Amino acid sequence: MKIAIITVGDEILIGEIRDTNSIWMVAELTREGFEIVNIITVGDNEEDIAKGIDFAFSRADIVLMTGGVGPTRDDVTKRALCNYFHTGLTFDQEVLQQIERLFTKRNFTLNEPTRNQAYVPQGCTVIQNRVGTAPLLWFERENQLLVSMPGVPFEMKSAMREEIIPRLKSRFLQDEYLKSHFLVSGITESSLALQLEKFERQLPEDFSLAYLPANGLIRLRLSVRGLSRLPEMQLQTEQLKRELQERLVAESDEPVELLLGKALRGRKLTISTAESCTGGYIAHRITLVPGASEYYKGSVVSYDNRIKISMLDVSRSAIESFGAVSREVVEEMALQVAAKMESDCSIAVSGVAGPDGGTALNPVGTVWISTRLHDRQMTQRYQFGLSREENINRTTNMAIVQMMKMLG
Amino acid sequence: MKIAIITVGDEILIGEIRDTNSIWMVAELTREGFEIVNIITVGDNEEDIAKGIDFAFSRADIVLMTGGVGPTRDDVTKRALCNYFHTGLTFDQEVLQQIERLFTKRNFTLNEPTRNQAYVPQGCTVIQNRVGTAPLLWFERENQLLVSMPGVPFEMKSAMREEIIPRLKSRFLQDEYLKSHFLVSGITESSLALQLEKFERQLPEDFSLAYLPANGLIRLRLSVRGLSRLPEMQLQTEQLKRELQERLVAESDEPVELLLGKALRGRKLTISTAESCTGGYIAHRITLVPGASEYYKGSVVSYDNRIKISMLDVSRSAIESFGAVSREVVEEMALQVAAKMESDCSIAVSGVAGPDGGTALNPVGTVWISTRLHDRQMTQRYQFGLSREENINRTTNMAIVQMMKMLG
Repeated sequence: MKIAIITVGDEILIGEIRDTNSIWMVAELTREGFEIVNIITVGDNEEDIAKGIDFAFSRADIVLMTGGVGPTRDDVTKRALCNYFHTGLTFDQEVLQQIERLFTKRNFTLNEPTRNQAYVPQGCTVIQNRVGTAPLLWFERENQLLVSMPGVPFEMKSAMREEIIPRLKSRFLQDEYLKSHFLVSGITESSLALQLEKFERQLPEDFSLAYLPANGLIRLRLSVRGLSRLPEMQLQTEQLKRELQERLVAESDEPVELLLGKALRGRKLTISTAESCTGGYIAHRITLVPGASEYYKGSVVSYDNRIKISMLDVSRSAIESFGAVSREVVEEMALQVAAKMESDCSIAVSGVAGPDGGTALNPVGTVWISTRLHDRQMTQRYQFGLSREENINRTTNMAIVQMMKMLG
Repeated sequence: MKIAIITVGDEILIGEIRDTNSIWMVAELTREGFEIVNIITVGDNEEDIAKGIDFAFSRADIVLMTGGVGPTRDDVTKRALCNYFHTGLTFDQEVLQQIERLFTKRNFTLNEPTRNQAYVPQGCTVIQNRVGTAPLLWFERENQLLVSMPGVPFEMKSAMREEIIPRLKSRFLQDEYLKSHFLVSGITESSLALQLEKFERQLPEDFSLAYLPANGLIRLRLSVRGLSRLPEMQLQTEQLKRELQERLVAESDEPVELLLGKALRGRKLTISTAESCTGGYIAHRITLVPGASEYYKGSVVSYDNRIKISMLDVSRSAIESFGAVSREVVEEMALQVAAKMESDCSIAVSGVAGPDGGTALNPVGTVWISTRLHDRQMTQRYQFGLSREENINRTTNMAIVQMMKMLG
């Protein structure tokens, strides 16, 4: 069963709000094993809604629509649906009663536009909206199913969780969706594709391997439908791991900062950071994880070189002899921050984020990363690109991965 | 000129990544005065891409596509475009040279899949991608224009900013698009809408006022088309400023960290930060601005309370008497970090980001922010919500805004 999602709303198209509904719906539906074939956002006008439905049904069996069902004049989804299904409106007493219950509870007075919410298209199944005034409309025609629901996120979520997903599941039994995840570093997407060419050729037809590169890391997802494919999935997963060898950082689709947190927590280790070119972003990523305070001590962001000396006790002579972007300085930073913050591990980075500040020796994108675990230290030079933001992101990912590798 | 956006990628449809590209593109394009008529996400297969293009052109004159142009086998946009425009591939020497330059700089070896990126559809205008291997493809046919670009966000942004938007503007936007921007803080969107009801009623028909709320700040955009409307625009801008009063932070649509940077640079002041619950995010935002090293000294991220004492010399007695989340501690943090880093200004924050760690006195979302300029200090308590990420974002915005207000 293929599903298309349509979100209706001018406010999305003028950038006033972000379409978070479709993101949430995709996550919930794919988790249940449904297949989403496209996502469409159209404005609040009947013609665009009709065209959007046609496009959606060109690939999908089921269309889930959100939005455009409020009591105000600019909400036209209901009229568009009447036209699309060649039907008219009828007054639904049960919907009115539901609205009245809701309004009594909230102490609101019922006005005419809201009362009109009880007019519903003839010939569709009306499902009560437990938390709002616009009912859910369930249309079936031959092999097509369309459900219209409110665009207010919490109303949409309530409708999906309590009414729509349960009905879809019991009606259209889905094959189990099997997935394996691989986090890979130290290779470009194209080189990895080349390396995995033979593996991909021998993959059974119904398996798929997706590459998801982001900021120096590549996430691979191997997937297949059907519980009966589990033994084959396990075999293919093992084979892929052998192909990836030391490039494989983790078998997971979680963020690297979460994986680092788990590794530290599992070994009861603490960590601190000393950052120059990343300007606090490593600290930010580590502390995005709830409960990071269990293992994270803190960071010194020594953006100005004098701070490296005054706050981190990096030797002035090292900075003067080797420059701030050097193995010597970044190793001192890692050593000193671990000592000062009394942490088991530390990460230190120093580099040229750009767009300015590059030299012949250290062009923009040059970064030194040093990681420590007790008295072991690993230091490496990286050469990234010209984009400041990208360099900050890549440095952060590589620093966390380098630390994870030391933790084994 | 009506624009449709198509994002191509199975990874979006199976919920592996969020389509942030279309959100960014809508924001940038509407800022320039373009009208977006729909947004479509389709999977990595030729038929869906073709159907998506047809649907897009049913309403739009211009279609902007991102994604599906990597060197791997699952990226099929180029083939789909060849079919759609009835053309074949040709080898483009300039694209190859551009890829070679990029790879030499990064010290990568050029492989066959990447080299194949230099095969481009015949009959389209090829625009070099300055930061990646997939060129931008610009197709024109009768009254239709389609541009394909990479889906990697930083490559897409570079392409849009440097190549596509400038070309679209000079080609299609004859009428001047007049805009005034207002950055507002300290009020909810619905309260602001209520406060501006009268102002909006008197606005001439062709003016529009858009609300763009994000993380505790609201950006207002007043716009109208046509240079002849300039005097009226100036009048309305002055009127709106009077309505906003002290809620108005700046007349700008720039990020707050950029505005802060400009204010500091203009007054030749330096700044440092001491962060607890934001975990380095304030430092990160400040250092996202190129050239921030001119005014930014550094940060101490004192996630662990002991770091507040050992690295910032916050008095143990203050922490013990008042708790880490208190006026007293945050004021000491601001004072100490400015002294240690010898900066003119400082920002310090301490709070409960959540989801755990709340108390009756300081529930999740409680944050103290202290800002200093020489010997002046301003300290305020804020109460945000329950989401950790949202609290980090809001605290950072409010801290920067509070500092800007002190700078006047």
